[in-house]
Amino acid sequence: MEQTYAYARLREFTRNVFIAIGCPADQAELASEVLLSADLRGIDSHGVARLSGYVRLWEGGRINANPHIRIVHETPSTAVVDGDGGLGLVVAPFAMQVAIDKAAQVGTGWVSVKHSNHFGIAGYHAMKALDKDMIGMAMTNASPLVAPTFGKERMLGTNPIAVAIPANKQPAFVADFATTTAANGKLEMLQRKAETAPTGWIQDKQGNSSTNPYELKDGGALLPLGGDREHGSHKGYGLGAVVDIFSAVLSGANYGPWAPPFVSFLPLAPDPVGQGLGHFFGAMRVDAFRPVGEFKDHMDNWISRFRATTPIHDEQPVLIPGDPEREMQAERLLNGIPLLEPVVKDLQAVAQKFNINY
Amino acid sequence: MEQTYAYARLREFTRNVFIAIGCPADQAELASEVLLSADLRGIDSHGVARLSGYVRLWEGGRINANPHIRIVHETPSTAVVDGDGGLGLVVAPFAMQVAIDKAAQVGTGWVSVKHSNHFGIAGYHAMKALDKDMIGMAMTNASPLVAPTFGKERMLGTNPIAVAIPANKQPAFVADFATTTAANGKLEMLQRKAETAPTGWIQDKQGNSSTNPYELKDGGALLPLGGDREHGSHKGYGLGAVVDIFSAVLSGANYGPWAPPFVSFLPLAPDPVGQGLGHFFGAMRVDAFRPVGEFKDHMDNWISRFRATTPIHDEQPVLIPGDPEREMQAERLLNGIPLLEPVVKDLQAVAQKFNINY
Repeated sequence: MEQTYAYARLREFTRNVFIAIGCPADQAELASEVLLSADLRGIDSHGVARLSGYVRLWEGGRINANPHIRIVHETPSTAVVDGDGGLGLVVAPFAMQVAIDKAAQVGTGWVSVKHSNHFGIAGYHAMKALDKDMIGMAMTNASPLVAPTFGKERMLGTNPIAVAIPANKQPAFVADFATTTAANGKLEMLQRKAETAPTGWIQDKQGNSSTNPYELKDGGALLPLGGDREHGSHKGYGLGAVVDIFSAVLSGANYGPWAPPFVSFLPLAPDPVGQGLGHFFGAMRVDAFRPVGEFKDHMDNWISRFRATTPIHDEQPVLIPGDPEREMQAERLLNGIPLLEPVVKDLQAVAQKFNINY
Repeated sequence: MEQTYAYARLREFTRNVFIAIGCPADQAELASEVLLSADLRGIDSHGVARLSGYVRLWEGGRINANPHIRIVHETPSTAVVDGDGGLGLVVAPFAMQVAIDKAAQVGTGWVSVKHSNHFGIAGYHAMKALDKDMIGMAMTNASPLVAPTFGKERMLGTNPIAVAIPANKQPAFVADFATTTAANGKLEMLQRKAETAPTGWIQDKQGNSSTNPYELKDGGALLPLGGDREHGSHKGYGLGAVVDIFSAVLSGANYGPWAPPFVSFLPLAPDPVGQGLGHFFGAMRVDAFRPVGEFKDHMDNWISRFRATTPIHDEQPVLIPGDPEREMQAERLLNGIPLLEPVVKDLQAVAQKFNINY
């Protein structure tokens, strides 16, 4: 049911699609790099599988292919960026660069973004800080799919957080996770395999715990990390809320249930409280705290020591955040990216629409 | 089994104990305010119940009652503070003030702290930013009690994160939570009541899921938020790891399994990788992003809208982070702070030791 495609081929195709919808060449190039980084790192739900979704948003007039992205407010260590309705895939790199530039000047940089759209995987943006010897952070709000603890209404997105921390000989520490028990992409995988979900992932529209992965399409909701109150779902809810507020209330984007949906067939909220989706980025220069060499040596020690944690089962060692994705990237650069049949058909339809070589 | 004490009485007693161990009067006053804020907010495990623990650490030579707390490195938006082995209860307010001062100058301030000790509840420190119209953040590493996903060794503390965000007419949003499913204090409560723990809170020393709240004393471990891999424990582990790295690797404190234990009967690691415990504080000026009035009005709207989320059960509305603690504080200021009998006995022993009026 899967076909495998070379990274370079998918990357070129994606770039051509972005050019076809009117993106300037350099932005199309960048957007394809950001989008495909999800496929390389194994976050299949956020990569090329979403390309047709971006196209439909553009067709619906919800994406500006040639935006004037700009800083609208700033201090030495902060900025607010207006994405002008552009692809999050190009708005986010602009904003992350502003954070990095500010960190170079005053130690840290923090950028909240409004009027943007989905930005691919948070990890890509956070990792941009690494080769500058900075710690990078990225987060975003997203389509409302998540019920807060005690609620049955969808109020938050899966609101991911990524933190990338450089090391010396060890590969970087890269945490990148949704603030829900499981991301929506995991449910889609269960649906394709006709499997049930573990308890604690979803609830039905009445707020009852459910293991039916289709529940979400029937008015149910994803659950905050923790699953239920007894297992700390109020912490996952609090974390998702902080992401929402930093990304959207600080910048002037739509927050909470007003966040625009990714799927173009759902209407926008009739009473927006801001503009577009919001993101939040941070960069901290390591040497604003401690000499870089000293820090990185201790990070090596941190990583080695955690990798050497006595495992419960010898065959499953303790991992460092970022390990699985890095290994996946090496493997997929070599052997190609597997795409499920529905994704392939979707891409073929996009190719046909724009008369692009597939 | 509980006796209730007026806040002012416990506060004065605590201050007198800190003076008895050699703290300067102003630091004893501050430390008692910080410690008692846990009791007021209902985080009983982190309040006056720990006073005898601080005393024992001082007796063991692990706390410097009269520290020279100072900035050892800084940039316009960052600093590293050396706590000189002082009470975290006084080191942390110093460092948070540095973060606030830097935010006043360049928009945000970020302070990593080494050579400190336990700082009470994270929320107290984060909330210091609120009346400056800033967002406050506080986190700390702590005694290793938590096994990373797939591991059976205790590698991390419960590593809490607090974020305080000001609103206008609504009370502030204050999230303050351990990055584990349940904090250690919750286990102690179960032990006192002879109840079992829910699954997903703890594992035994072999790494098997357990519901026995005594397991931790028998070599078991607390679990990261999420509980197990299927429910996202790698996210809780990643979050606790970020807290550890920001607090201790950035500053030069002890990290991971090297973090010094709170209980004085456990030896310090023979091969320290830094000095004392670490903390991390942040302050972001709201108007470094958006006019304060505009931001606060939207926070009011955020809070009202989330409070109005359709509840699963009408009798349990959706809460805003900080609601339960704020209500508890109002109630306890009025009616007093209930203390369990073992805590009372503990305090009586402290009173006797220093010949302080109890």
